[in-house]
Amino acid sequence: MYRTHNCGELRLKNLDQQVTLSGWVQKSRNKGFMLWIDLRDRFGVSQLIFDEQRSSKDLFEKAKTLGREFVIQVKGSVIERTSKNPNIATGEIEILVSELTVLNESLTPPFTIEDKTDGGEELRMKYRYLDIRRNYIKEKLIFRHKVSSEIRNYLTALDFIDVETPYLIKSTPEGARDFVVPSRMNQGEFYALPQSPQTFKQLLMVGGIDKYFQIVRCFRDEDLRADRQPEFTQIDCEMSFVNQEDVLKTFEGLVRHLLSSIKNINVDDFPRMTYDEAMSKYGCDKPDIRFGMELGDLNDVSKHKDFNVFNSSELVVGIAVPNGNAFTRKQIDSYTNWVRRPQIGAKGLVYFRFNYYGSFKSSVDKFYDQEDLGKWANITGAAKGDLIFILSGGVSQVRAQISALRLELAENLDLRKSDEFAPLWVTDFPLLEWDNESQKYHAMHHPFTSPKLDQLDLLEKSPEKVKANAYDLVLNGNEIGGGSIRIHDKKIQALMFKHLGFSEAQAKEQFGFLMNAFEYGAPPHGGIALGLDRLVAILHGEESIKDYIAFPKNNSGKDVMIDAPSKLDDIQLNELSLKLKSSK
Amino acid sequence: MYRTHNCGELRLKNLDQQVTLSGWVQKSRNKGFMLWIDLRDRFGVSQLIFDEQRSSKDLFEKAKTLGREFVIQVKGSVIERTSKNPNIATGEIEILVSELTVLNESLTPPFTIEDKTDGGEELRMKYRYLDIRRNYIKEKLIFRHKVSSEIRNYLTALDFIDVETPYLIKSTPEGARDFVVPSRMNQGEFYALPQSPQTFKQLLMVGGIDKYFQIVRCFRDEDLRADRQPEFTQIDCEMSFVNQEDVLKTFEGLVRHLLSSIKNINVDDFPRMTYDEAMSKYGCDKPDIRFGMELGDLNDVSKHKDFNVFNSSELVVGIAVPNGNAFTRKQIDSYTNWVRRPQIGAKGLVYFRFNYYGSFKSSVDKFYDQEDLGKWANITGAAKGDLIFILSGGVSQVRAQISALRLELAENLDLRKSDEFAPLWVTDFPLLEWDNESQKYHAMHHPFTSPKLDQLDLLEKSPEKVKANAYDLVLNGNEIGGGSIRIHDKKIQALMFKHLGFSEAQAKEQFGFLMNAFEYGAPPHGGIALGLDRLVAILHGEESIKDYIAFPKNNSGKDVMIDAPSKLDDIQLNELSLKLKSSK
Repeated sequence: MYRTHNCGELRLKNLDQQVTLSGWVQKSRNKGFMLWIDLRDRFGVSQLIFDEQRSSKDLFEKAKTLGREFVIQVKGSVIERTSKNPNIATGEIEILVSELTVLNESLTPPFTIEDKTDGGEELRMKYRYLDIRRNYIKEKLIFRHKVSSEIRNYLTALDFIDVETPYLIKSTPEGARDFVVPSRMNQGEFYALPQSPQTFKQLLMVGGIDKYFQIVRCFRDEDLRADRQPEFTQIDCEMSFVNQEDVLKTFEGLVRHLLSSIKNINVDDFPRMTYDEAMSKYGCDKPDIRFGMELGDLNDVSKHKDFNVFNSSELVVGIAVPNGNAFTRKQIDSYTNWVRRPQIGAKGLVYFRFNYYGSFKSSVDKFYDQEDLGKWANITGAAKGDLIFILSGGVSQVRAQISALRLELAENLDLRKSDEFAPLWVTDFPLLEWDNESQKYHAMHHPFTSPKLDQLDLLEKSPEKVKANAYDLVLNGNEIGGGSIRIHDKKIQALMFKHLGFSEAQAKEQFGFLMNAFEYGAPPHGGIALGLDRLVAILHGEESIKDYIAFPKNNSGKDVMIDAPSKLDDIQLNELSLKLKSSK
Repeated sequence: MYRTHNCGELRLKNLDQQVTLSGWVQKSRNKGFMLWIDLRDRFGVSQLIFDEQRSSKDLFEKAKTLGREFVIQVKGSVIERTSKNPNIATGEIEILVSELTVLNESLTPPFTIEDKTDGGEELRMKYRYLDIRRNYIKEKLIFRHKVSSEIRNYLTALDFIDVETPYLIKSTPEGARDFVVPSRMNQGEFYALPQSPQTFKQLLMVGGIDKYFQIVRCFRDEDLRADRQPEFTQIDCEMSFVNQEDVLKTFEGLVRHLLSSIKNINVDDFPRMTYDEAMSKYGCDKPDIRFGMELGDLNDVSKHKDFNVFNSSELVVGIAVPNGNAFTRKQIDSYTNWVRRPQIGAKGLVYFRFNYYGSFKSSVDKFYDQEDLGKWANITGAAKGDLIFILSGGVSQVRAQISALRLELAENLDLRKSDEFAPLWVTDFPLLEWDNESQKYHAMHHPFTSPKLDQLDLLEKSPEKVKANAYDLVLNGNEIGGGSIRIHDKKIQALMFKHLGFSEAQAKEQFGFLMNAFEYGAPPHGGIALGLDRLVAILHGEESIKDYIAFPKNNSGKDVMIDAPSKLDDIQLNELSLKLKSSK
């Protein structure tokens, strides 16, 4: 037996017990006549003590040779510390060691195994197994397990069935790019890895499973952006005989349960907002509502003067920065530069100060008087002492710009508190969006999303106006989930395919099995998928997902630890009947 | 709201309540003046009643038009049945319908949605979503969810952490064939899908996770045999600071928990048997010990006469068939033919009867006398009234043959009871096995399995004799799991690679990251992986796994429902820089 206890569980009540511990040498302090070692395992740290008086000479000498991260086993008795450490759970006791075995030696690790390490990102990725030893990563993985356990148990209690769907499926050109898997047994043919189990969960509804969930890996071969992974984990759910309200209530319940069971935070009914409202109030469809700074539409009160920048703009929009009057000119300039960066792409930033005496000072005083500015202040909800930033331009660009500026300001003003949780449903998404490249309408959610049935007649003449029974769950400005009520009527599905520019043959080729299934009594159904990686990160008070994934890939889709992807040998390629195209 | 109740929950206590139900029309019985419909959903069946007196004419006429598998919603009141059905939970009540809505029509399904269907395997696979509607499949999927829930909760309570490991990993030629995934972002390079997360779970142990589990999909590109799937689900586990006894105790606990919580069956400590013992007693390493019929080694008592078949055989071995004396000559001949089939490959079958008067009658009476046969009866443990079958030949062939015969006999004699559970640990597997094709030793388990440390000196001169700290968990004659204590010492690992014929460069190329990790304080560790598909099937009293998988593939690795794998278009191939080799 390697241990009687783990390194985190001994207390004063264990005094005088003979114990065996195993773990890693976290650090050792040698006072010459006395030597302490912090022995670490997943459960905690226990202090070992060796001294000239009580330890045998051999043992004492051996203890001196232990390096950082050596794996050792010790036997000894639990004694009370003379100087207690209230910061750790085992801080009242230490182990007077009588026997020491080195289970494994260790080279000096390339970075320190401490909460704050000296290792850079790349080094930590290459030695991820050492990084995981750090509390910083380890706690995140444990937290993730806790969240996924709670999710499973909550949904199981609600009669959801966890059904595993296949990973080797069929490639469909719709949506993002698939990862494909050549078949050796069916030469020249390929499987695809699922971007989501969307069609399978709908087939399970046709199959009468009624309530389905799965925590499932999904794959998307996209050009990676920061904090995107080619494989990611989804909490995938679907329900039968439900309308939108049923789905929203169920998953609001799930997230409320997670917040209360894991974070001990109770939240009220989640607020709801239509897509149109979110776009006009916050400039984006996943607003962070932990703070205000709502957008004020200044179109009606800004185009009556000679200021051509505004007059020629589709949208003039402002936000009031609380207490922003305290900003220096230099600070304001830095925001002007910030919005001008190519990632944001604004031409400039108009501002005005609402000073403590109630008057206004703007960067466009040449064009607008105090009365104009008073109206603007009113519309943006500004108070004395605020600063108002104004952007103008095309509607969609200027909304994206001011939304980004709003978040940047909130970040800098510390308004995005990691221990505050503001969930929000955004509903009534547009059914279709115009794609300039293909000159076609695309399904905004996916081609199986139900339009609002009372808007079907709009499909012909103003398809962009049709709303869908689609909804997103937003948490602290992040889309953590999205779903929709699906089309279960094959006539409406055929109509949708037509408007998405699929010929009947194309639709049959790609989705024939689903359309076929819908001939045999598909129930009304709908569902949602939540991104587990991000949900876990946000619940844990962070936004980056990488450290919540045990073995993440870098931004080129590479696992630098195992060196994947890598070349295949010719035998493997031959067996698959594949040839690499020469790169020339 | 589509329903106030599901179709399985209404009882007499709901009498006179106004309810709304939704579901599928299971069947309808029309008596002219009265019409009953069985309405089905996942939760059960409720009887609907329409009649000329109490239903409006329109409603009654509409009810008559409903076909099988139509999806309908009804409103009505709960009334007591005049003729009750004790076979279903809702059998005391029925719903007098006042309102009927057809939610979706259905074509006539290609097979009946009944417990016993008229659909053949291929048809059921093509319309799997309809097959899943049948209780027969649905109950299996629900059972699977129950088993996996219990597994997760049991391991979580024991401080195991569910850590998700990557699916896009690195290809290694060791073991079975990998499925590979071409990388678009790293042209000419490939990921591989994991055959198991073996190396990752070992890295998690190096990372101090201590106790890991995951219910995870694994992939093997093998030529499929019946009841093998290219993707399968594994309960993957690993523990640190453990010896073999710790692992066995932990997972014996898990299986005992499953048997008691799910099957309400309490089993004692699992018996254990070494590999050598299993092979000599049962001829195989996964014996079904629900019944006896142990092998009797007749070498010492059968080679002293002129019967050349036995004299020239490496092994002569018999089994006693309980009450087999009742077999007709025709039955015996059919077993002779059975063992001669190419799948078994025996030349013939010697037998003798142990009749009720205590004398023997054999097919080799020309060579052996009653005294010889008495010894044979004694060694095979035969009793009066038994029949003894004897096979001879090379050790490994004859063991495989008699083991197959033993199972076939037990099957026919109904000794393999599906409600009896006989778990067994088989331990001390050989470390290496000789591979004739490559003329090399292969790791029997995998290259990271620890040899018995006191047998290391045998590695040089008789490598085939070295045993490993490897163990299999056998349930009712099926290997449901296997694992080992791993090598954590890099010197022993290097020795292993040498004996497996890996050059240092090859070992570094393929397992460099793991060997590297082992330089930094790897703890002693070991683990196990259980096949979930088979475990679930066996716990449910069956052996075939296919119906415990929602969307299985056929024996050519095809999903005939979605038609995967399939051809890619040239754009996709181009993006991946791949060309198909022409088949000529």
